[in-house]
Amino acid sequence: MTNENFQVYPLIDKKKRGERLTNKEIKWFIQSYTDGKLPDYQMSAMLMAMFIKGMDVSETAYLTDAMLESGKQLKFPGKNVIDKHSTGGIGDKASFVLAPIASAAGVKVPMIAGRGLGHTGGTVDKVEAIKGFSTALDLDTFSQKLNKEGLVLIGQTPEIAPADRLIYALRDVTATIDSIPLITASIMSKKLAEGANGIVFDIKCGTGAFMRTPKDARNLGKSLIATSKRFKKKAVALITDMNQPLGNTVGHSHEIIESIETLKGNGPKDLTDISIALAAHMIHIAGVEKTFEKAHKKALEMVSSGKALEEFRKLIKSQDGDDRVIDDYSILPLASAETQVLAPKTGFIKMFQNEQIGLLLIELGGGRKTKADLIDHSVGFTFHKKIGDKVKKGEPIFTIHHHPHQQPIVEKIKAQFVKEVLTMSSTKVKAPKLIIEKLS
Amino acid sequence: MTNENFQVYPLIDKKKRGERLTNKEIKWFIQSYTDGKLPDYQMSAMLMAMFIKGMDVSETAYLTDAMLESGKQLKFPGKNVIDKHSTGGIGDKASFVLAPIASAAGVKVPMIAGRGLGHTGGTVDKVEAIKGFSTALDLDTFSQKLNKEGLVLIGQTPEIAPADRLIYALRDVTATIDSIPLITASIMSKKLAEGANGIVFDIKCGTGAFMRTPKDARNLGKSLIATSKRFKKKAVALITDMNQPLGNTVGHSHEIIESIETLKGNGPKDLTDISIALAAHMIHIAGVEKTFEKAHKKALEMVSSGKALEEFRKLIKSQDGDDRVIDDYSILPLASAETQVLAPKTGFIKMFQNEQIGLLLIELGGGRKTKADLIDHSVGFTFHKKIGDKVKKGEPIFTIHHHPHQQPIVEKIKAQFVKEVLTMSSTKVKAPKLIIEKLS
Repeated sequence: MTNENFQVYPLIDKKKRGERLTNKEIKWFIQSYTDGKLPDYQMSAMLMAMFIKGMDVSETAYLTDAMLESGKQLKFPGKNVIDKHSTGGIGDKASFVLAPIASAAGVKVPMIAGRGLGHTGGTVDKVEAIKGFSTALDLDTFSQKLNKEGLVLIGQTPEIAPADRLIYALRDVTATIDSIPLITASIMSKKLAEGANGIVFDIKCGTGAFMRTPKDARNLGKSLIATSKRFKKKAVALITDMNQPLGNTVGHSHEIIESIETLKGNGPKDLTDISIALAAHMIHIAGVEKTFEKAHKKALEMVSSGKALEEFRKLIKSQDGDDRVIDDYSILPLASAETQVLAPKTGFIKMFQNEQIGLLLIELGGGRKTKADLIDHSVGFTFHKKIGDKVKKGEPIFTIHHHPHQQPIVEKIKAQFVKEVLTMSSTKVKAPKLIIEKLS
Repeated sequence: MTNENFQVYPLIDKKKRGERLTNKEIKWFIQSYTDGKLPDYQMSAMLMAMFIKGMDVSETAYLTDAMLESGKQLKFPGKNVIDKHSTGGIGDKASFVLAPIASAAGVKVPMIAGRGLGHTGGTVDKVEAIKGFSTALDLDTFSQKLNKEGLVLIGQTPEIAPADRLIYALRDVTATIDSIPLITASIMSKKLAEGANGIVFDIKCGTGAFMRTPKDARNLGKSLIATSKRFKKKAVALITDMNQPLGNTVGHSHEIIESIETLKGNGPKDLTDISIALAAHMIHIAGVEKTFEKAHKKALEMVSSGKALEEFRKLIKSQDGDDRVIDDYSILPLASAETQVLAPKTGFIKMFQNEQIGLLLIELGGGRKTKADLIDHSVGFTFHKKIGDKVKKGEPIFTIHHHPHQQPIVEKIKAQFVKEVLTMSSTKVKAPKLIIEKLS
């Protein structure tokens, strides 16, 4: 809280000229906006100036603080309370795998997750494919469940970092999303409020991510870790490939099934590897195991022993979801029709315009065009081929799961996929490296 | 008019990345905003992106056209219809002096003036210090009065360049004023619509102007003259100093008094010289006099003969203002208290942070913090010293005209003036050159 009074215009003007804003100036600006004293149009001008002119490490810290302090801040005493954050991507369902693994190993995992954002799906939307699963718990229940169950997953609440909620909605419609300082403050204000004592970041990088290049991803990772450390949180960031969907499925029910299969030990290699790696880092920084190697072994054991799967069952039960889903996928909403998309020629898969895949899912009803849209959990895609794979002309590349009446949309998706999403090569293509870099 | 449909987000994104917008894109964006289909917060994000990333000559032309075409366009046949535009500065009341001079000499002067803008006051706000003076005339009345009286002064009307009116109001509160392309499009869309056949520009340059350096001022001047010529208008631009207030007074009623005094031949040298020079260029390009020298002599005669003063009286009367003000300043709203600000040491006045003076006036109530604020016409400053003047410690530098209850704000202004506005030198300082350059 600051009692000083500033004028809006000189502050926007200062940032516009590329000068540094002070802690008091940033706090006053954010607080005034959150209190409704500052109109959207002034905030959006400031955001664009921040976006283009940038914010240095200290300004990013001030912004994070201001947004953090706009809401409630939870505190969990145990050093084994570890949070995880993914910057989001196509088919990213790793939370459903890594959180039960870490929890089974003795890490407490408080998850406050988001809904679908732009072309990427949301963890909260995905888990709601499970009948009854409630993500609308209040913060008291959230704390109680964390202490009792060791694992809890809720949606964003207005009590945590309300400034971020307001600013995010504005950034989303003013082309000011992909800024490292703004992303850092947005992520960290929420993560710090959630009371974890360590955070593992999964920074996606590629055609389906907000960060397109490893360089941008590295800069964001460094910024997140620096901010975590300033708050005396342990932090690790993995930079991971997002040039193709993670796992083989995209779409809500289908991603839940794939997550459960992975917990059963039958998952695709990329989803398994990334989930184990992230969970292992959580186990390690929680202090459950002394070395990363031991933590990694522990994570693998949690899957092979079935303990992680039971942990997921417990989570579903604890939040009123229908836990029969673990053994019977047919209780999930699943569209009845299937259409295969075939390779237009023989060759190697070279590239997916991954963001387009997310947009095609939205076309099918499996995502939101506007905030008010309902999501159809039953539709989705199953990919049979990955980058580097050899395919023969006519061989299926992926399957569209849709409703029978959606045939016209399906035809459009097929055409767009071949035209805009898929690039093939006549010569061999190397599969991209999954985990590109670790930062800590 | 364009039938094409664009999406807002990709256009903001494009400009944010510094790419050129097309004619169709700019027209669609401006038209959508003017039609109320695009919210302020998206326009302000776009304006900030345009501001920081810049607009090239063709984008500026597209923007001017789009804003011009958003409203009515007047046409006056006589080649003696000459408009004047000042880019605005602290204490700039030259319009009230030069327009009556030019009009008395036989130039027809159609003035559509603005309100307070950032740290600078507005001609319309200032003239409204005169009781009854109506600036809200419709365009038919505007045309009739121009033909009958030869001089008319109104505020911006929704009929002329409505796009500019909306955008200007937004720029005014989002620190997106001082951009050459945005200023060019804003000025020219209005000036072209006002139907004058020639335009004289006063481009202010210095610490109290939107253009800080002669180089920026020259670039703006060139941009304005090029656009004028593209529309076959005669145009002259003077680049003039704005490193200190023009004249000795700042604040609405006080500036009206000083303008009348100048028309009476008792004005300060800088205000007198600049008004005469600008009026002379108007008289010259109107074709009233064949040479600038003759026009200059004519302008001086209009003051010494009292004809210009009578012209101002006629203007006030014609627009329902209380013309007794010419002879009795006490009918203006004038704050009752006065506080002198004294020189903190002996030396020479070296510099004023002139913009700060405008902001201090806003603090005192003599300007707007938000679009909705009312202006207090009665407050202001009278400067007793100019750059280059020698002052003794304890000698008054300026007087604050305020209300008795404003003592706390006055103390703050005194402290800020000494700390942030005034720079003194122990050695002699040269007074700045008033008219720096002429462009045509």
